[in-house]
Amino acid sequence: MGTLTYHRIKDIENLKLHGRMDTGSDVVALLSNGHGIEVNVTGSQLWADIEADYTSFEPWAAIEINGELISRFMVDKGSRRICLFRGIDPGKVTRVKFYRELQAMNDDKSTNIVIKGLETDGEFMTPPSYKYRLEFIGDSINSGEGTYGAVTDEDWTAYCMSYSRTYINLVGRAMNAECRVISQGGWGVFSGWDNNFRHNIPSVYDKICALAAGGPNDKYGAGKAYDFSSWVPDAILINLGTNDCAGFNQPPFTDPDTGEVYKLKKNEDGTFDKKDAGQITDAVINFLKNVRKNNPASHIVWLYGMLGYELNRPLTEAVNRYIEESGDKNLIFIQLPSANDGTYGARRHPGIKAHEIAAGIIADHLKTVL
Amino acid sequence: MGTLTYHRIKDIENLKLHGRMDTGSDVVALLSNGHGIEVNVTGSQLWADIEADYTSFEPWAAIEINGELISRFMVDKGSRRICLFRGIDPGKVTRVKFYRELQAMNDDKSTNIVIKGLETDGEFMTPPSYKYRLEFIGDSINSGEGTYGAVTDEDWTAYCMSYSRTYINLVGRAMNAECRVISQGGWGVFSGWDNNFRHNIPSVYDKICALAAGGPNDKYGAGKAYDFSSWVPDAILINLGTNDCAGFNQPPFTDPDTGEVYKLKKNEDGTFDKKDAGQITDAVINFLKNVRKNNPASHIVWLYGMLGYELNRPLTEAVNRYIEESGDKNLIFIQLPSANDGTYGARRHPGIKAHEIAAGIIADHLKTVL
Amino acid sequence: MGTLTYHRIKDIENLKLHGRMDTGSDVVALLSNGHGIEVNVTGSQLWADIEADYTSFEPWAAIEINGELISRFMVDKGSRRICLFRGIDPGKVTRVKFYRELQAMNDDKSTNIVIKGLETDGEFMTPPSYKYRLEFIGDSINSGEGTYGAVTDEDWTAYCMSYSRTYINLVGRAMNAECRVISQGGWGVFSGWDNNFRHNIPSVYDKICALAAGGPNDKYGAGKAYDFSSWVPDAILINLGTNDCAGFNQPPFTDPDTGEVYKLKKNEDGTFDKKDAGQITDAVINFLKNVRKNNPASHIVWLYGMLGYELNRPLTEAVNRYIEESGDKNLIFIQLPSANDGTYGARRHPGIKAHEIAAGIIADHLKTVL
Amino acid sequence: MGTLTYHRIKDIENLKLHGRMDTGSDVVALLSNGHGIEVNVTGSQLWADIEADYTSFEPWAAIEINGELISRFMVDKGSRRICLFRGIDPGKVTRVKFYRELQAMNDDKSTNIVIKGLETDGEFMTPPSYKYRLEFIGDSINSGEGTYGAVTDEDWTAYCMSYSRTYINLVGRAMNAECRVISQGGWGVFSGWDNNFRHNIPSVYDKICALAAGGPNDKYGAGKAYDFSSWVPDAILINLGTNDCAGFNQPPFTDPDTGEVYKLKKNEDGTFDKKDAGQITDAVINFLKNVRKNNPASHIVWLYGMLGYELNRPLTEAVNRYIEESGDKNLIFIQLPSANDGTYGARRHPGIKAHEIAAGIIADHLKTVL
Repeated sequence: MGTLTYHRIKDIENLKLHGRMDTGSDVVALLSNGHGIEVNVTGSQLWADIEADYTSFEPWAAIEINGELISRFMVDKGSRRICLFRGIDPGKVTRVKFYRELQAMNDDKSTNIVIKGLETDGEFMTPPSYKYRLEFIGDSINSGEGTYGAVTDEDWTAYCMSYSRTYINLVGRAMNAECRVISQGGWGVFSGWDNNFRHNIPSVYDKICALAAGGPNDKYGAGKAYDFSSWVPDAILINLGTNDCAGFNQPPFTDPDTGEVYKLKKNEDGTFDKKDAGQITDAVINFLKNVRKNNPASHIVWLYGMLGYELNRPLTEAVNRYIEESGDKNLIFIQLPSANDGTYGARRHPGIKAHEIAAGIIADHLKTVL
Repeated sequence: MGTLTYHRIKDIENLKLHGRMDTGSDVVALLSNGHGIEVNVTGSQLWADIEADYTSFEPWAAIEINGELISRFMVDKGSRRICLFRGIDPGKVTRVKFYRELQAMNDDKSTNIVIKGLETDGEFMTPPSYKYRLEFIGDSINSGEGTYGAVTDEDWTAYCMSYSRTYINLVGRAMNAECRVISQGGWGVFSGWDNNFRHNIPSVYDKICALAAGGPNDKYGAGKAYDFSSWVPDAILINLGTNDCAGFNQPPFTDPDTGEVYKLKKNEDGTFDKKDAGQITDAVINFLKNVRKNNPASHIVWLYGMLGYELNRPLTEAVNRYIEESGDKNLIFIQLPSANDGTYGARRHPGIKAHEIAAGIIADHLKTVL
Repeated sequence: MGTLTYHRIKDIENLKLHGRMDTGSDVVALLSNGHGIEVNVTGSQLWADIEADYTSFEPWAAIEINGELISRFMVDKGSRRICLFRGIDPGKVTRVKFYRELQAMNDDKSTNIVIKGLETDGEFMTPPSYKYRLEFIGDSINSGEGTYGAVTDEDWTAYCMSYSRTYINLVGRAMNAECRVISQGGWGVFSGWDNNFRHNIPSVYDKICALAAGGPNDKYGAGKAYDFSSWVPDAILINLGTNDCAGFNQPPFTDPDTGEVYKLKKNEDGTFDKKDAGQITDAVINFLKNVRKNNPASHIVWLYGMLGYELNRPLTEAVNRYIEESGDKNLIFIQLPSANDGTYGARRHPGIKAHEIAAGIIADHLKTVL
Repeated sequence: MGTLTYHRIKDIENLKLHGRMDTGSDVVALLSNGHGIEVNVTGSQLWADIEADYTSFEPWAAIEINGELISRFMVDKGSRRICLFRGIDPGKVTRVKFYRELQAMNDDKSTNIVIKGLETDGEFMTPPSYKYRLEFIGDSINSGEGTYGAVTDEDWTAYCMSYSRTYINLVGRAMNAECRVISQGGWGVFSGWDNNFRHNIPSVYDKICALAAGGPNDKYGAGKAYDFSSWVPDAILINLGTNDCAGFNQPPFTDPDTGEVYKLKKNEDGTFDKKDAGQITDAVINFLKNVRKNNPASHIVWLYGMLGYELNRPLTEAVNRYIEESGDKNLIFIQLPSANDGTYGARRHPGIKAHEIAAGIIADHLKTVL
């Protein structure tokens, strides 16, 4: 084992960053699921100098070495030195990825993991290369809710969520793709599971990490406009609608600011109110227009179904109308199988088996079009 | 072993018939895939007195005992006695199903298996009961093309097709459902894979077994109008569109009678010609109207995707427009995963693994609605 | 389709025979499981001219085309023409294997399937080649008892047995090996499940097909001495002991000829009587000596365990003592996992999943030594 | 969230300890794989006050909540507070297990994790109950070497080892069994993989945790005699022999103290030298005698085979001779399938799939005897 040298994170040239980030900062702030760093490094060991914070939802992180998950843990508040690996033949090149498991917590603006430096007795080599770039947009399914925890677990805990076991990570591995995620449990394309109209993903798409913005993470650029030309995805996969659908069965949401009441309604015969379903359809179309505007060449896939097919009709209607109106030829709707008693994870969400099945279907499709 | 007694098939009260049949005949003619007989019988053995015919596509049949496939074989021309089982403790009740594997062969009007009688030393007990009734409508996927044979097999042989290994049989087993099939390889909802506009399944839906009609099988009532009230399905599952889609990539079809030329066209940019896609959409809507008219209470599922998702848009458009226009609340579109290199069977068709996956998704869905 | 030409079976040069057979006969008699013929043939169709017989246990047969099972059926008494395939592009070479599913029935000396000729419009090409030769020796597990039929099936029927679904066929497929089987349900290495000392496999090993001898099948050479130099196996896999073990828990067997009573006994504490266990051990050693004498270069594997591990000790003792005494270096004992509630087939015997697991373990081992 | 109360670990009555431990200490020292604590606790959160140390091999730990792994991480030197869970509805009872992943490191006597207290806003309820007690004794396979890490990983790192993914943990989960492990990578029943005769597991069996003894961990009782009456296992599963076997193919070991040279030798024909194989056999017999002496009523299973079957004969010989000489009726040899290219993990050791297969076989067996 040689002498450890401390490298300020921003001084490391051969550093691969994962996730939308503001490059203006002199640290690397992991503000959202899948945010991380990756290096190909020689030496017997590698340590990260980090600082973390949270109020109610503690951040979790994971370490992959040579492509396999070897560690997953909560990161407590405060500064600490985390070992990313040790005990390896110093002459070898070790590929290490350290990333955040927990989604950007819109409900806890203070949550973050900040990487300030790396310490090693080795050298940073050319960073790992990827064949594709994929952007995933979604809700709790993309946030991996239920991929950890017992089937009987019901509490909304940070540990139940992950990036490591989601179909996102699995598709990335199957396709050698660099993946980014924008997702938030409970949010929809039009409104959230509780009819909260503010909880829609399209409203956060144009900022670097708007879900984490509006608080201490603003200093890491969370709320800045995102430069779409900085990272052009080969495909964009949107998995939204599950929470919009839930709104039809949930009580109304009262806007605390205005007192106005919002609710997606069903007709007496159990079908969706036409106007309300239409709001979802319009939201999908508008979001697709915006996604396309910002990503002219990317293949777009609208995914849906892992927690039931009830919103099939408004979603396909929206996709079809968008294609009809736009002439866009590079977009498809793909339904994923609903989780069942054999594939549910915690909190009645898709478990790891459901994510494996979805990953297979998605990767199969992408291989035919990319 | 007791003495064998010959029972004319129509004299057996406790006989369960599978498939749409004309009860006017004094024999049981197996004219289509899934057509068969089933009994709960005591005795040490059971034989069937049958007669079969074909010109180019020989019929295949299968035997299930107590719910498990034990035999599958070609039935040659002529009369013969086929053993359905023997060597069983005579006091036991054995459940036996003898059914046709091969689809009704529209290209060989002479194909049939006719059961004239059964011979046993036992007694026919109350026939097996089923919890549900399911009707499946489709193309080569429903006809089980590729569920038998090597991955490298390319010839369109009778042995490559089955009922036994299709998702139909698997869903039936998983749900204790009596299943019927109307299917024909190469046919579509609007036109066939080769743009032959006559090869559409809706045109045969109202007759008992129109695919086998127009020849010697007419004497078994193949061409008679079907009485939809005689067997009310809990659900109807339609898997059509795959061949319509193929037509866009195939040469035109020239009607031999009129010389007129038919072809579904693509635009220069590879998208479907709007009018041609619209013809498929109209065909779907019209078919759904007819299916609903004849089955007012049945849950309807439109399945699609086991051989690619290219026709997603016209199909979902049709389903959505039909719902919109009709107000029908009991219908859903469900996409099935496309077969891949691990799940293809013979003739680049879904193999048994693909059918198992599809069966799981379909049964999961039906359990939530029935 | 060209004109069919009849070829007497013995006139076909490019015919591959499977199983120990007397080449003196001018027909091919399928007297045991795995006995069969295989051809690479052009032409659109192939028919077999056969004759079959049985008294109590009807023979079953199977057809594999290009390596995949496509048909499996009972063969009734009498002469008939069986289609092995039809409807294939005549220019292609089709690989066809037609083989017996049912073991040689020691309880029914009349059981047989005799192939007299083949009829085709094609030509017989060089027969398929195999990389290895494997000989399997065993009991009902090797006879595939339970690989067909429902888990609840309890009768000892011919249909419950197979070659097609046994680990033998699966190992053969995995290793491109030509496989032969000598097996009989209920038999042991020393005595049968019912303590019948005559039901031991070593007593039939030196004859071509002694299990089928002593009756009409003698004319096909069943009882002739076997020429071990005619087919030298790369490995010999013996799976015996399960029935010997059963004898300890079964009533005594009384020799009908002499009135003598035979029984493997347990001590009061439930362990095996030392002398009786020693008889099994001796029988294993003597059998191994004989197998080795006749197969000097073959790798030998003693398999055991698919229906419990109770006889482990006497069997390993025998294998160890044989090695010790003989200096034989080319022999190993391999335990296979016992079937469980998820892998049992009919008649509480290993089902197809148990055979798949065993095949994997066996093929893995053979790949390391061959 | 209520106020957190600090409980000294030894003051917690409702604490379940896992692993052999000296109860004299006023802390809980995790000195070996599987060592851990388990509680049923109410409250919204639970923290552990720990201290850890190592020189060359850092300890790893894991957290299971309600029976599912949710975290796995390296524990760095020094004191810290580790969160075992937080964010749970305080009224619920949460089952938490915190345990060591890394084996006792005979090569690093300083490695430990010491638990000094727990902090919670809840109450400790009756600890979890188990139906069975199982003791596992073994080598690197039991130490989970290869259950984490990429298939290409070759370095002997702490992260490659685990308790969480071993068959031990899986059998425990399948059978609701409390499991203990004594294991060390590279060690044998007679001598280690490198012919080091000191590296034999029997030499450490009678002490509490002799593998961790001889250094700072002595203060936690590592080197004290173990009281076998304190925890009577229903079954003891010994998986040893793999490293003894390796010695035959490795260079000699020279005792640094005496200069004497040790080597298990093969004959010129590749077989084991009789005297050397005999030493292994004797070592097995002596170990079995000692295990039985200390555990008169436990069912004993000798497991072997996950990394090849080469030592089958000396091992079965030993087991058989031990039974013969002792009259012990409560012992069996069970061979496990060798890992293959589909089931290897890191360092050419059995991966998680191989452990799952082994766990199934072991649990199946135990269910038949316990």
